Amino acid sequence: MRSYFFCIIWVVAVAATDSNPDATSIFNGEGCANDQLFQTRIRPQIQQLASNVQRIIDHVMSANESGRTYRQLAEFVDRFGSRLTGTKNLEDSIDYMIDLLKQEGHDNVHGEPVQVPKWTRGNEWARMIKPRDKKLNILGLGYSEGTNGQTIEAPIVVVRNFTELEQKAGLIPGKIVVYNFKYESYGKQAIYRHSGASRAAKFGAVAAMIRSLTPFSIDSPHTGMQSYDVNVTKIPAISITTEDADLFQRFSDRNEEVIVQIYSENHNEKDKGISRNTVSDVRGEKYPNEIVLVSGHIDSWDVGQGASDDGAGAFISWRALSVIKKLGLRPKRTLRSVLWTGEEFGLIGVYDYIKKHRNELKDYVIAMESDIGTFTPRGITYSGKNSTSQCTLWEILQLMHPINATTLTISTEGSDVQAFYENGVPISSLDTANDKYFYFHHTQGDTMTVEQPDDLDKCQALWTSVSYALAMLDDRLSR
Amino acid sequence: MRSYFFCIIWVVAVAATDSNPDATSIFNGEGCANDQLFQTRIRPQIQQLASNVQRIIDHVMSANESGRTYRQLAEFVDRFGSRLTGTKNLEDSIDYMIDLLKQEGHDNVHGEPVQVPKWTRGNEWARMIKPRDKKLNILGLGYSEGTNGQTIEAPIVVVRNFTELEQKAGLIPGKIVVYNFKYESYGKQAIYRHSGASRAAKFGAVAAMIRSLTPFSIDSPHTGMQSYDVNVTKIPAISITTEDADLFQRFSDRNEEVIVQIYSENHNEKDKGISRNTVSDVRGEKYPNEIVLVSGHIDSWDVGQGASDDGAGAFISWRALSVIKKLGLRPKRTLRSVLWTGEEFGLIGVYDYIKKHRNELKDYVIAMESDIGTFTPRGITYSGKNSTSQCTLWEILQLMHPINATTLTISTEGSDVQAFYENGVPISSLDTANDKYFYFHHTQGDTMTVEQPDDLDKCQALWTSVSYALAMLDDRLSR
Repeated sequence: MRSYFFCIIWVVAVAATDSNPDATSIFNGEGCANDQLFQTRIRPQIQQLASNVQRIIDHVMSANESGRTYRQLAEFVDRFGSRLTGTKNLEDSIDYMIDLLKQEGHDNVHGEPVQVPKWTRGNEWARMIKPRDKKLNILGLGYSEGTNGQTIEAPIVVVRNFTELEQKAGLIPGKIVVYNFKYESYGKQAIYRHSGASRAAKFGAVAAMIRSLTPFSIDSPHTGMQSYDVNVTKIPAISITTEDADLFQRFSDRNEEVIVQIYSENHNEKDKGISRNTVSDVRGEKYPNEIVLVSGHIDSWDVGQGASDDGAGAFISWRALSVIKKLGLRPKRTLRSVLWTGEEFGLIGVYDYIKKHRNELKDYVIAMESDIGTFTPRGITYSGKNSTSQCTLWEILQLMHPINATTLTISTEGSDVQAFYENGVPISSLDTANDKYFYFHHTQGDTMTVEQPDDLDKCQALWTSVSYALAMLDDRLSR
Repeated sequence: MRSYFFCIIWVVAVAATDSNPDATSIFNGEGCANDQLFQTRIRPQIQQLASNVQRIIDHVMSANESGRTYRQLAEFVDRFGSRLTGTKNLEDSIDYMIDLLKQEGHDNVHGEPVQVPKWTRGNEWARMIKPRDKKLNILGLGYSEGTNGQTIEAPIVVVRNFTELEQKAGLIPGKIVVYNFKYESYGKQAIYRHSGASRAAKFGAVAAMIRSLTPFSIDSPHTGMQSYDVNVTKIPAISITTEDADLFQRFSDRNEEVIVQIYSENHNEKDKGISRNTVSDVRGEKYPNEIVLVSGHIDSWDVGQGASDDGAGAFISWRALSVIKKLGLRPKRTLRSVLWTGEEFGLIGVYDYIKKHRNELKDYVIAMESDIGTFTPRGITYSGKNSTSQCTLWEILQLMHPINATTLTISTEGSDVQAFYENGVPISSLDTANDKYFYFHHTQGDTMTVEQPDDLDKCQALWTSVSYALAMLDDRLSR
């Protein structure tokens, strides 16, 4: 069905899709009518929750409250801008969040320290100098090394895929490899960004330039994480725009030599830094040890404002708890908000969290995440295979008719929450009309301009309602 | 109906729309059945042309020929890149075109010299330094002066429109005015780009930053022409992205002071340059003095490749003559292709042409122009009020059914060809599905990636067919 994936977990996502092409499907309530447990015990409980869910929707969409998520998010991202892992700015923004969550009356507000890498983008530029002079609009990729104070100058070799890379192996020593793949989806082609440099280095390339992962561009380079294989020269890995990739392809097709210069001070620091996952709760009154987790990541790339990726996901998550507090609702289970750190550098925060909380994971009902856009909401995804649980979520989503977000999609896709899925906890993602998500993803265009107040309100209402309902049902979701 | 306008002639376009709200309307053939002249004389002639028009379409879309316009355009813009008025690069590209048009067998190939201004973009940058540090993605506007070797540092005053500018007059001395209008259409809001600097300078502003003219952005600044009023200080005029305009607005709404630094070496040279309009013909066999003119402009802004604005328009125009030559068709009137120069700096080439050819204008049947995108074609526009002429064009467009481009829109809109309209010559523009035209307009994203080979073929077939038919009808279009 949908073929997009999440910030960086393309390896998992591709594997999941390849091994099970039916992994993603719309659930239409089939079978629920004959599900005795669902019909006799769970459905009546959901019906009892309907009035409080309606209160949540009415409150979030009310004249007084509407636009609040947008405004609070704007105040945050306007103040801090981008929040790269390993920077003081990210830690300042986490301090701000901890203060804010305390002001909002959340319980158990604290940061959980996480060791993180420090990667620094220094000055960087690239030019085509033959057949004519042209500045290239580039972004070095995360974890990429620079050019050691030198300017690399070399002809390019354009390849459309790894097969062509191998076919052109003899041409590559001393050259800059340009990957100009055909973009089908983020999940399918992210392998070029992630592994392209090392694969080119094996054949003797001096740098790799990778087409930006997007279906649409206004000469916009997209950064993102790459990683080096062991025992391979760490050559610079650079994102170029789709326009320049197309240009290089055309020169290549005409057998015109292209020479490019690259200069980059990007580098990995030897020292690690300390960041924090930001945790806060609304403590459950009846089953306090059982946890419904809502989350987004607070770190971002160092371009744009990190508004869409993933300020908005983080904000609808913690604000779900605030809305519940404000309405005086008292969930039976603990609602936990986590603002992950280090997501963009390899899900560092969530894996640290899993390590520290492993023994509690049996009590996690669900790990919810918003990290693929907060456009007009359609509904949610859910990874669990238990049909009663699917009926339960589907029935809850039918309460979302007022905001037209009733679609339940069965899918194992996720970014941070994949770490929970790997550990047996069902996961769920916010599902929105995100056709343009990758237009802005990891670019200077990831700003508040991508976000719309009304869409954020609807996402907020949905996210709050679903997490509240799951924290209230006496029959917790079966896995 | 449609509310877009053309490269720079927003003053004329706005005036036209304001004075006559019905200026743009779809013509549906009404009245043609009762038009005796059309029915008895013209329609039969068009029916006789049908087979040759079909040959044109078949040829352009054939397996051997398809993609040729795209490929030739790509070779041109890849070789020269952007072609700013006043640069040697533009003149080199004109030399290339003159050689190419001779090779293509056009008649009367020559350049007509035109004196043009030389405006130079030097180094330029801007930063927000308060409330936090942020590089701004900017483009100085054409004809703008720079900062005289200094860095301007000043607080900003954000205004949504000229009324707000006047209301805030007392705040403006010594400040940088930011225009953050609501974009409705290029035609409606281009006044801010064009006149914003001088209007702000009158109130004592030290610079003006103008929101980019676009409905969509990935942090993309759009350049374009501005002009200074006489007797007003020539302050720097700078385009900022919609995202930064939104950011400044939010800071302003929160009463947070924003301080910006601007540095710019942009300047107008004292010396004028010489450029050329590039003229070529297929000489008419029966009425050689009567001219059907097809055109686009060869100059571009100094960003991107000038592929969409207006390389593609120029290429489908001269290639219309090449297709007719190639097919051995012998038009009765002279088909003339003109590649205008200096369009982006105020229609300089076309006005020079008008001046030199004024006495011949009575013999111009029509001045056709493609300068608003070459996306999937819908048809053409036509400015003429004579109903028989409207029926004639409508009937010709019915031959475009094979490429689904049969729509005749009555409209006086145009860019370069406005100069003909002002002198009594009916004008026509290529009409395509150009919803995204202003996404790329005057940005680094104006590259071949905007163009699609199949769309260009269809535009080529349409443009060639219409101009050929108008050169063939013994009854020339009445004005």
